[in-house]
Amino acid sequence: MNATAPSSIRAIDVIRKKRDGGELSKIEIDALVSGYTKDEIPDYQASAWLMAALLKGLSRTETAALTDAMLHSGEVLDLSDLPSRKVDKHSTGGVGDKTSLVLAPLAAAGGLTVPMISGRGLGHTGGTLDKLESIPGFNVNLPVARFRKILETCGCAMIGQTAEIAPADRKLYALRDVTGTVENPSLICASIMSKKLAEGIDALVLDVKTGSGAFMKKEDDAIFLAELMVDTGERMGKKMAALITDMDQPLGRNAGNALEVVEVLEVLHGGGPKDLCELCLELAAWMFFLGEAAGTVQEGKQMSRQLIASGAALSKFREMVELQGGDTKVVDDPKRLPRAQHTLDVVSQKSGYVISIQCEQAGTACVLLGGGRERKEDSVDPAVGFVVHKKVGDAVEASEPLCTIHYNDEARGQQARALLLKSFEMGDAPPAEKRPLVHRVITKCGEKN
Amino acid sequence: MNATAPSSIRAIDVIRKKRDGGELSKIEIDALVSGYTKDEIPDYQASAWLMAALLKGLSRTETAALTDAMLHSGEVLDLSDLPSRKVDKHSTGGVGDKTSLVLAPLAAAGGLTVPMISGRGLGHTGGTLDKLESIPGFNVNLPVARFRKILETCGCAMIGQTAEIAPADRKLYALRDVTGTVENPSLICASIMSKKLAEGIDALVLDVKTGSGAFMKKEDDAIFLAELMVDTGERMGKKMAALITDMDQPLGRNAGNALEVVEVLEVLHGGGPKDLCELCLELAAWMFFLGEAAGTVQEGKQMSRQLIASGAALSKFREMVELQGGDTKVVDDPKRLPRAQHTLDVVSQKSGYVISIQCEQAGTACVLLGGGRERKEDSVDPAVGFVVHKKVGDAVEASEPLCTIHYNDEARGQQARALLLKSFEMGDAPPAEKRPLVHRVITKCGEKN
Repeated sequence: MNATAPSSIRAIDVIRKKRDGGELSKIEIDALVSGYTKDEIPDYQASAWLMAALLKGLSRTETAALTDAMLHSGEVLDLSDLPSRKVDKHSTGGVGDKTSLVLAPLAAAGGLTVPMISGRGLGHTGGTLDKLESIPGFNVNLPVARFRKILETCGCAMIGQTAEIAPADRKLYALRDVTGTVENPSLICASIMSKKLAEGIDALVLDVKTGSGAFMKKEDDAIFLAELMVDTGERMGKKMAALITDMDQPLGRNAGNALEVVEVLEVLHGGGPKDLCELCLELAAWMFFLGEAAGTVQEGKQMSRQLIASGAALSKFREMVELQGGDTKVVDDPKRLPRAQHTLDVVSQKSGYVISIQCEQAGTACVLLGGGRERKEDSVDPAVGFVVHKKVGDAVEASEPLCTIHYNDEARGQQARALLLKSFEMGDAPPAEKRPLVHRVITKCGEKN
Repeated sequence: MNATAPSSIRAIDVIRKKRDGGELSKIEIDALVSGYTKDEIPDYQASAWLMAALLKGLSRTETAALTDAMLHSGEVLDLSDLPSRKVDKHSTGGVGDKTSLVLAPLAAAGGLTVPMISGRGLGHTGGTLDKLESIPGFNVNLPVARFRKILETCGCAMIGQTAEIAPADRKLYALRDVTGTVENPSLICASIMSKKLAEGIDALVLDVKTGSGAFMKKEDDAIFLAELMVDTGERMGKKMAALITDMDQPLGRNAGNALEVVEVLEVLHGGGPKDLCELCLELAAWMFFLGEAAGTVQEGKQMSRQLIASGAALSKFREMVELQGGDTKVVDDPKRLPRAQHTLDVVSQKSGYVISIQCEQAGTACVLLGGGRERKEDSVDPAVGFVVHKKVGDAVEASEPLCTIHYNDEARGQQARALLLKSFEMGDAPPAEKRPLVHRVITKCGEKN
């Protein structure tokens, strides 16, 4: 043990220092994270520290140190023997956000390796793992060795967090969830980035959502978090870009696990709703650019269009489904996916225009139907959800359907109907201003002129 | 259960509300305290709440609600069948502060009932219970029934906190101690006042120390805490007064458990150092005034002088020692108290005047000797301590003793010597300004003109 060994640092002193607004050293943060992960520091000290950190804030240097300590609390994948660039995308989550399922095979089809470790849905937002599991047989719980093998073969694989990856985050997140210490940009950044950097990636594209359906309702908060994550990744030698994107209405038309896979397949077949296609192309373009598969973002976008048009991205998706044990027949026949027993239309009560869709409410309707989780231990119904027919700015006649609910339980269907109807705000004229899909891009990896 | 039952309130929501700067209702505070006391709310939620409360602050209404909830977490003594007024004194603690041992018998001799429940020493300050236990046989761990019986017979009794009194404070204090959430006036106020109000008193005199040996180093902090405690007590219908008193040097001359009892006996015999006598008379005067045994504070002071001069206070002390199982022979023969094996003088290295005595350092010297506790579970040596010969403003010749250390362990004696020598700041002239012993009195119980 050297003189500055973490074990010589007392948790109480680290708590007091942060409480009094001091800036913690890397050694102090390491001692706290490693002590907590090893059960040497009790929950009650960790939660007092988390509250002090939330209220007093962490500097960028502290945030990077926290991320690094959490990253190194477990296994960090070493994919350096794979010749291609390892690139991933992370989204802060929204309603109808299924871009990961398009992007992983699309980027792999373009020559990148995408080692995607994702989460489950919680609250009003869906989760990538739940969507994948609506494909019969698809296994997201693979050991790291098998994950690596699939990456070598196929270039992309999508699994859930393992016990080996960032155990500090797993433990800290569970504590934050019950102690009111979730809502802090530095803690959010460290949680996201520690898991993503454990994937052994070279570059990361962040999709930071803002709007009524996003975790960050205010654009300024989204920008602050995005800049913090970009800075943290860059301090660790990663190429980073963050797109601030709109979540003031569901992305695409479908929300609900199997329904979202249907829409993913539409996009991979060259169709799909305009907003979803556009966002997938933007994010893929940045993945190719940061992963040095394209010289410019524009070139990356062109590549993405071609990889979809040629069917290469779809083939890659089929290959990944097969390697992860899923039923590949769904790829060409989405009707094989789980389907709800009943549907009902939510019809407009008057003529006019859709002014806004209260997106958190809409997401909550999906949870009510059984398509999401109120608590971590809840199971999800893959078949339920809703399909939006009218989006912001669209003209609507009285009695015309705004959306269609797919449900298995009558009472839940009615509850969701009331909530969805309320979430559509109608007006006599379309909204004056149309919010762009991508509000801005935050990166230091600018294109050369 | 009614609609506003505490059980319908979730700890996480109370934490979040305080975190976001909201003012908690009495119902929310009750739910938190009662849930925590009953082990329904885990330590990690309580500590997150404590940190949020420390950093965001509690209003006076919240502080009173917290005190009330902690008070009613356990037994509240009902001494209403005793005809006399029940009055107590509480000190925030200092070095050489042994006034409680003088005041309880003095006030009882004047016709008040003093149901004093005290604590042990922790950190650089001593504790009343440790001092009492240096009297051979003195039992501070009495059941409530016996405590009440002694109060009936003798008018005063001095015991330690029982499991029945304010269990919420016991649990919360232990948690605060290890989570960096001690230093907040509202939490300190609720901790002190919940225990004192559980004694079933009518009036309370607070001795809030300020200076280098006090918990509140800054006078403004002491005043803030004093006003908060006075306000909290008055909201509960108690007569309250707080004296802000000087703790910039040890009180009296002796520090250390048995040595302090020796000095208490000097005072009760009509002698003792001037500052200690003066403070005892001031505090007793306020106890008599608030307890309606005297019409004015001045009259209370006169009563106190007489009760000492007549030997009535000393007799009461002897009676209490006997009823609590102690050796009454020590009262007239203090040499029977535990005595250290060795003494050594700390001599001045130059001539001049004592400018200040770094009082926390001096207190720490006593802990080093074994006379106090670094941790709760430490036992104390009743015999060790020090006797101050030169106080602030006194002239000192080179090689004259500043103080004498009483010790049992050579190495500890030397460590204490170095610390005590350092704690005396010497100068060529006496300090320009002499700090008064009582800086100010905070009360709404003014005297009628």
